[in-house]
Amino acid sequence: MAVEDPEAEGAEGLESAEKKFQRELNAGLIALVLLSVLDRADEDLYGYQIAKQLQAVAPGLSVFKQGALYPVLRNMSAGGLLASRVVPSYAGPPRRYYRITDQGRVVLKQWLGIWEQTRDFVDLFTQPVRND
Amino acid sequence: MAVEDPEAEGAEGLESAEKKFQRELNAGLIALVLLSVLDRADEDLYGYQIAKQLQAVAPGLSVFKQGALYPVLRNMSAGGLLASRVVPSYAGPPRRYYRITDQGRVVLKQWLGIWEQTRDFVDLFTQPVRND
Repeated sequence: MAVEDPEAEGAEGLESAEKKFQRELNAGLIALVLLSVLDRADEDLYGYQIAKQLQAVAPGLSVFKQGALYPVLRNMSAGGLLASRVVPSYAGPPRRYYRITDQGRVVLKQWLGIWEQTRDFVDLFTQPVRND
Repeated sequence: MAVEDPEAEGAEGLESAEKKFQRELNAGLIALVLLSVLDRADEDLYGYQIAKQLQAVAPGLSVFKQGALYPVLRNMSAGGLLASRVVPSYAGPPRRYYRITDQGRVVLKQWLGIWEQTRDFVDLFTQPVRND
């Protein structure tokens, strides 16, 4: 539900409706993107590496900022979709490396199916009608 | 965040991860689709009419069931994105008809921009690489 409270009046309301929509849209999609990135990775990755990969592609998308990734990585790890190991680093704190588990691959496949079906449905109702 | 609790173990866990993903993905998108449908409508529509339009296109998508639409319509109305009027019906309870407001059109434009940007970003990381 995109507008739960009746605050959306005037410029402030418009901005809050925009932020709320973005936040809700991202909630599931951050996990999908992270799982997919780790599925395609040749090696274990730590949070900062993943954030850099995402930002290299879409520097403007504050959506997928580093800070937003860590809790999702932790939650997916707790849920068995990722496995992680901690590796000491020469400078700075130890790094936690993640990789996708077999269960994570099963869930990724399910999520991709849901994503594609939902995306096509939304596009059907929101994109300009094409006459081809 | 797609997996907030560590329940996701075994078949039950997989199913719950799937349902949670779908629920989160839908939260914002139901509102986007409803706003878009009302933006394109030639006349005011009531909830059941909208549900029928959506189900005609995607009968399998339980996601956008009638029951899920009403709270979203009410919330968008409270938020000023929709206006509504109640019309008595010959049989059954009176019907509440909705139309999009000027503010709703501004928000729809914002949401469409967010949707397209996010959709393309997710596809970039999840869809098979095309060599063309």
